[in-house]
Amino acid sequence: MAILRSYVSGRWHTPRSGGAPLHDAVTGEEIARISSDGVDMAAALDHGRRVGGPALRELTFHQRGALLKALASYLMEHRDELYALSARSGATRTDSLIDVDGGIGVLFGYAGKAKRELPNDRVYVDGAVEPLGRGGTFVGRHVATPLRGVAVQINAFNFPVWGPLEKFAPAFIAGVPSLVKPASQTAYLTEKLVELVVASGLLPEGSLQLVSGSAGDLLDHLTAQDLVGFTGSASTAQLLRTHPAVIRNSVRFNAEADSLNCSILGPDAVEGTPEFDLFVKQLVTEMTVKAGQKCTAIRRALVPGGLMGAVAEAAGARLEKVVIGNPADESVRMGALAGLEQREEVRRSLKALLEAGEVVHGSLDRVDVVGADAERGAFLSPVLLKADPDHAEPHQVEAFGPVSTLLPYRDAAHAVELAARGAGSLVGSVVSYDVDFVREVVLGVAPWHGRLLVLDRDDAKESTGHGSPLPSLVHGGPGRAGGGEEMGGVRGVLHHMQRTAVQASPRVLSAVTNQWVTGAPRVESDVHPFRKTLRELRIGDSVVAGPRAVTMADVEHFAEFTGDTFYAHLDEEAAAANPFFGGRVAHGYLVVSFAAGLFVSPEPGPVLANYGLENLRFLTPTFPGDELTVTLTAKQITPREDQDHGEVRWDADVVNQKGESVAKYDVLTLVAKQ
Amino acid sequence: MAILRSYVSGRWHTPRSGGAPLHDAVTGEEIARISSDGVDMAAALDHGRRVGGPALRELTFHQRGALLKALASYLMEHRDELYALSARSGATRTDSLIDVDGGIGVLFGYAGKAKRELPNDRVYVDGAVEPLGRGGTFVGRHVATPLRGVAVQINAFNFPVWGPLEKFAPAFIAGVPSLVKPASQTAYLTEKLVELVVASGLLPEGSLQLVSGSAGDLLDHLTAQDLVGFTGSASTAQLLRTHPAVIRNSVRFNAEADSLNCSILGPDAVEGTPEFDLFVKQLVTEMTVKAGQKCTAIRRALVPGGLMGAVAEAAGARLEKVVIGNPADESVRMGALAGLEQREEVRRSLKALLEAGEVVHGSLDRVDVVGADAERGAFLSPVLLKADPDHAEPHQVEAFGPVSTLLPYRDAAHAVELAARGAGSLVGSVVSYDVDFVREVVLGVAPWHGRLLVLDRDDAKESTGHGSPLPSLVHGGPGRAGGGEEMGGVRGVLHHMQRTAVQASPRVLSAVTNQWVTGAPRVESDVHPFRKTLRELRIGDSVVAGPRAVTMADVEHFAEFTGDTFYAHLDEEAAAANPFFGGRVAHGYLVVSFAAGLFVSPEPGPVLANYGLENLRFLTPTFPGDELTVTLTAKQITPREDQDHGEVRWDADVVNQKGESVAKYDVLTLVAKQ
Repeated sequence: MAILRSYVSGRWHTPRSGGAPLHDAVTGEEIARISSDGVDMAAALDHGRRVGGPALRELTFHQRGALLKALASYLMEHRDELYALSARSGATRTDSLIDVDGGIGVLFGYAGKAKRELPNDRVYVDGAVEPLGRGGTFVGRHVATPLRGVAVQINAFNFPVWGPLEKFAPAFIAGVPSLVKPASQTAYLTEKLVELVVASGLLPEGSLQLVSGSAGDLLDHLTAQDLVGFTGSASTAQLLRTHPAVIRNSVRFNAEADSLNCSILGPDAVEGTPEFDLFVKQLVTEMTVKAGQKCTAIRRALVPGGLMGAVAEAAGARLEKVVIGNPADESVRMGALAGLEQREEVRRSLKALLEAGEVVHGSLDRVDVVGADAERGAFLSPVLLKADPDHAEPHQVEAFGPVSTLLPYRDAAHAVELAARGAGSLVGSVVSYDVDFVREVVLGVAPWHGRLLVLDRDDAKESTGHGSPLPSLVHGGPGRAGGGEEMGGVRGVLHHMQRTAVQASPRVLSAVTNQWVTGAPRVESDVHPFRKTLRELRIGDSVVAGPRAVTMADVEHFAEFTGDTFYAHLDEEAAAANPFFGGRVAHGYLVVSFAAGLFVSPEPGPVLANYGLENLRFLTPTFPGDELTVTLTAKQITPREDQDHGEVRWDADVVNQKGESVAKYDVLTLVAKQ
Repeated sequence: MAILRSYVSGRWHTPRSGGAPLHDAVTGEEIARISSDGVDMAAALDHGRRVGGPALRELTFHQRGALLKALASYLMEHRDELYALSARSGATRTDSLIDVDGGIGVLFGYAGKAKRELPNDRVYVDGAVEPLGRGGTFVGRHVATPLRGVAVQINAFNFPVWGPLEKFAPAFIAGVPSLVKPASQTAYLTEKLVELVVASGLLPEGSLQLVSGSAGDLLDHLTAQDLVGFTGSASTAQLLRTHPAVIRNSVRFNAEADSLNCSILGPDAVEGTPEFDLFVKQLVTEMTVKAGQKCTAIRRALVPGGLMGAVAEAAGARLEKVVIGNPADESVRMGALAGLEQREEVRRSLKALLEAGEVVHGSLDRVDVVGADAERGAFLSPVLLKADPDHAEPHQVEAFGPVSTLLPYRDAAHAVELAARGAGSLVGSVVSYDVDFVREVVLGVAPWHGRLLVLDRDDAKESTGHGSPLPSLVHGGPGRAGGGEEMGGVRGVLHHMQRTAVQASPRVLSAVTNQWVTGAPRVESDVHPFRKTLRELRIGDSVVAGPRAVTMADVEHFAEFTGDTFYAHLDEEAAAANPFFGGRVAHGYLVVSFAAGLFVSPEPGPVLANYGLENLRFLTPTFPGDELTVTLTAKQITPREDQDHGEVRWDADVVNQKGESVAKYDVLTLVAKQ
């Protein structure tokens, strides 16, 4: 029997012998053995730090994003290899799609975020310039730089592809190498995934390593620059979180643990409403997808007391139709649990839950299956319970399988109180069309949740569902759910970086961040900066143009021409009564239009288009007779990896004859590379 | 002798008897006794949760900010009461200023941040709307809501005023009540501070509690909604971090521990340069302010090998002039350590450091003092060492007093390597005018630092100094420094809130966040929204205006009028060659000017001024002959607490005759309340 390999220190490691057996969830056959025997954990971490980290840090955010996109495309071409193995874990085709395509989707998502929301640079600037002195010679700004260690990622058995990829993607974009340790039960899928990644040859060596089997002494070798990301049970999370090396080095530790997620049906959503049907359908989906083995599944269905019977009946009718069995059979809608141990564990939890309630649908020990042996495969009937919400069990006992419990509530405040008894959840959902009820419940339960889905007739068609974390949204929850945060777009990238406040003169701050800031030196030369290509242009390159007088005739003409006859421009008496002006003023849009007329270099050249403007503030009114001068300075230069041009952000500062700034803003242009 | 009181559950609690003695640092006299005997910790936490939290959550961010500002003013009036006690801790007037005025400055800082950077609302919206489906019916956005627990704040002895206030301010703005537990040695100052706060009557009851003395079983009662913020030694941080209740409930735990901060002199900064003098002066300041009892003090001074002698000599000469003694004496520049135990501790650390080096200036056991007894008061001479940087001690042993070590380095890479051997620091500084050296060092050491100061001739005059955390910048550092983050402006506020991803239809998302988002219903009525006062206006109120044709004559006239004769507007052939246009296009500023002409309501009314514009993107070119229609929708309404007006952010969407958006942006206006 094959032993799963590890990919560490730049090569595949195969244990000589031994290893625990892994079984097919459907047939019970042995698939492979697993052992990390002989893996040098300290060397693997060192390899990540010495080889993977430096190679990643050479690349810009955009270059890392481009690699991630290429990798995603490569995996899409090879996903059938993953599907074939996925079926052996008990997964239906739909289940595999969530794991495999979902995981690849995270790579695409992060590639897009890197390109759109991060600079084409190696340092990330976090937030605005903070003035620290009145004279403007001392300023502060936060930067984020990649941690110099390894992101150790310990994953759960239920998503052997998505799980590693959703942790790897933000680390990779941040410039931090990953070391993945999958849960044993389904590690054969993660091994295949890493095999594909390595075979693609797309990633710098050391950016992704794999340990199949026990973590051994891995954590003993952690330093302050390493991170740990864990998905799994709350009890294991506690063990890892208190590991001496984690505590001693203040290692960044992120846990995502199973939680007792709720779904709340609004009192408006009575039988016959779209929301009633949406609630029932979503509940059944969450119970049966992945055979309920999702940390985001609905464990507690909160239902207005008067609707308990109707919901139980409607859900039971739907569950009745779910065909269970071998995923190879096309009629099958729900496969097996990951293994016989899992099934035993779920049965134990079910018995505990029955202390507080009773079965509405399904059975703990009887199940009809198609195309498989119900006992050798890890099959279990979906079980819907109803229980007394005052009991502790429904809020504490998680049956990690196709199990959910209906709980009656009285009013919005009661629903919020019950939701909070989960003591921290990954996700909750509210199904209602009553916006007042929704607002009260969402804001009431938000402190206990990492994600909240509001499902109604308006968004149902496009909803991605209660159970689906998305790369652009945070995944994680407080308390019971582990207190962590994964993904969330750029937030997940920053989790892998150190935020540092830099205090300096504007000259130095500009040099450190690659973004020109007010007060830093400007370079004026004979060449207008609009005549420089993206490659020639440097931050600080600038042009001063003007003065141009703004006359009363200009203001009146602009009003007539544009139709903007706001009284402050035309009616002396009314303008004088305005608390900010004290007399007629020029239009703000006239000021920025005149400024453009001053700074523009009209002949064809590298500047291709003005695509936008940001952070415009009118700081002092412009009165007829004022003379305007504008200074335009290259602030940030962002070459696009896959285009002949890039973006240039210019600082525009329009001052009057007294030297007062009347308007400040950023002008956004597209500039040709050559 | 008086026993310090606690302020818990809405009243002052005085222990009947017992308590450990606290001593005057200068005279050794007993000042007070301290004990938390009889304090019901569980009840105190419960009081914060049941009374303080709800009262704070009733207020908006702006209202909390206004209270903080009022409190800061009140404390400024009473600061002499704090100064008087502060001197007994060994602090000079300057030291007290840093602690007392510094702490009050944090309150002012957070009051300003709340007003300028947070909405006048109870829910914080974090980041942009995330599109989750192509049809725009399902969108996501992150919100932050206050945690429903108590922020337990365990502080160090060295800043008995600043320490509590820098933790309290962001918690208060977030809407989370605080429970402060100061270190015993100087708790009499914190007791006085809380006495003043309570006497001010400004804060809602329950928003600030005080435990003087041992924390007892306080931590045993923590829930998932509480937080712990700790400042002190790394070893205590580890103990608290692994407390069973903290681990079990994934309690948000933030530690700020002493660290071995470095200051790096650039190779360009030879004798005679301003930077050489700045480096030496700052080093001496950091050694002597608060008698070096600052977790941000410079412990390791990294100096180019060739400059070691010059630096030692110059620093020694400056240290020679530092008058040590009773802070009551006006000539005194350095006071006592906080107590005799501290002095013993520093001496022990000094002996360990001497394993790797030797004394350059000062003495372990001899010190000349003015106006006090050198043995009964906790006086110690400043001690400057020099050591071999290859030894472990200078990078590991922290002498928490007026002690620093000079370490020679070879080049920038070596300096970065040595800085990193501190294994995580709160702050580092670089003193150099060579921007290339600075950039290499700053980006090289950033992953090991929470804050970095670059000091040079340009910013020296305004620099707040290596040792001073500021409310707008993060304070904290990785690894050895505790791995935490405090303050940092809004970042510190968000630390006390739960971030939740909300997925919903635009209608629901708008209602939950109080910010209109694209796709949510618009309300068009007979009343133009510019004619509604701030109190009448609702998000979603909108006006549709147009169409207006843009003619070739308009484009040519606008070019001539403004001077913006960019070729894409005037030269058909050149415009046709532009990769984005394919022909002559209207100016972007013409589009927004015409749009304003369409949507404006010209007569005097509640709209007072257009003060800016944000996020403008030109999405489709406007060609001569196109017809523009604009929709303006009230997006966010921000009343100003202390003004007769507020801010209204409008969504502007300009579309052409095909229904394509040609420009989208936010218009910012000031609108009268009535």
